Amino acid sequence: MATEAEHGAAARLEAMGFSTRDAALLADHFLDAERRGKLGHGLARIDWLAGLAGLDPRARPSLVVDEPGYQRWDGNGALGYLTLAAICDAQAADPPSRARVVVASRCFPTGVLGYWARRLAASGLVVAMTATSPPRLRHPDGGEALVGTNPLAIAIPSSEGHAVVSDVSMGQVTHGDVLAGLARAEDLVPFGGEQAHKAFALAVGLQLFVDALAGEGYGAVLVVAQPAADPVPELRRLAAGMRLPGDH
Amino acid sequence: MATEAEHGAAARLEAMGFSTRDAALLADHFLDAERRGKLGHGLARIDWLAGLAGLDPRARPSLVVDEPGYQRWDGNGALGYLTLAAICDAQAADPPSRARVVVASRCFPTGVLGYWARRLAASGLVVAMTATSPPRLRHPDGGEALVGTNPLAIAIPSSEGHAVVSDVSMGQVTHGDVLAGLARAEDLVPFGGEQAHKAFALAVGLQLFVDALAGEGYGAVLVVAQPAADPVPELRRLAAGMRLPGDH
Repeated sequence: MATEAEHGAAARLEAMGFSTRDAALLADHFLDAERRGKLGHGLARIDWLAGLAGLDPRARPSLVVDEPGYQRWDGNGALGYLTLAAICDAQAADPPSRARVVVASRCFPTGVLGYWARRLAASGLVVAMTATSPPRLRHPDGGEALVGTNPLAIAIPSSEGHAVVSDVSMGQVTHGDVLAGLARAEDLVPFGGEQAHKAFALAVGLQLFVDALAGEGYGAVLVVAQPAADPVPELRRLAAGMRLPGDH
Repeated sequence: MATEAEHGAAARLEAMGFSTRDAALLADHFLDAERRGKLGHGLARIDWLAGLAGLDPRARPSLVVDEPGYQRWDGNGALGYLTLAAICDAQAADPPSRARVVVASRCFPTGVLGYWARRLAASGLVVAMTATSPPRLRHPDGGEALVGTNPLAIAIPSSEGHAVVSDVSMGQVTHGDVLAGLARAEDLVPFGGEQAHKAFALAVGLQLFVDALAGEGYGAVLVVAQPAADPVPELRRLAAGMRLPGDH
């Protein structure tokens, strides 16, 4: 049942020209981000969308290649959130027999990747996904910002209880937190302190991986697969009640 | 032309029962690790192999499922190095038309993942790959070691110059360095200092991803794809001569 906050957020998005369905999808993402404390990806993004030049709330992503084990999507001017929502729906409706690589070009912004990964896991699929965003991280040796914070999200469904959802941005803080005044711009560096070169290398690798598969513009790549095994219950047993990634 | 070191290493491996071809493959991996300063994955591993219980130098990996966009391999008692070598050869001989997910079960040890990723990039393929290994990293809140150092390697070929090869282990030091006396066992924790929970979350996600796809035992998962674009030259231009991951 939709809460008052959902109604409020969805109503604002409808007033911006989004369909009822798309407004509900976007509101759900923003409110989930709020609940998980990811305020930079939360309701503040509605104002940010309102100021976005060239926003076409009626644009629709399209599936441009669909072959066994591979799909290519084009955001086609739609928000990345809506492109990923369409991709999630398409995987649930027509899951891969074994595994599928899904490449989305012109897919921005993507929001909290763990949100989409969790949705795919709820369809019974294993997923690893990443997405590019504007350059914010400098090389550890200096220079201009070279790569985005390029998160990697991985979700694994479980026969018992919740999926494990790991969602790691390569930045020490998020751009959203900088926007929201929760972090300083100068702290937006690769995470890891003395080993920040490792997070930088991950950000470079993930960015080039998406760029090589999706081409120009910001994009996303997902690997979705049928699980051949059910490893989460055993890991939870070994973790003996300690919080695993994605647990509330 | 094989160097004296290669001949020496290969001869020792042949004496252990490996075929001439397999001995040369293993020696090349170990010597490449030495040249890159990854001594824990270098020649010291020949002694380690010599002491490995149940080593069958004549075992052969097999391709057990081969469908469009998906392959499943079983190490079948062969060393993980040789399973990955067979996988690399198979991708070069029969590259995916778009992309392929390759799952390898009973694939241990895998050595330097960047070495295999670089080989695949030399065949013109984009690759992201990960592999599991014995639990060495504890939860940031304590307890027993829960997950391996589970590296993520990504390689992107370039139309100009070298591929970019990012190869990041989630440990602050490697188990190989502990074995080689170059690091203390108590320093084998997730990298990242105050943000070690991020590297821990990556190690958990990658481990469960492989476990869910490969099933019991240590395994590896690779995504190999045809590049749709050539992003490395532009990133090198922006990096203005600074070292990118995988550069010597």
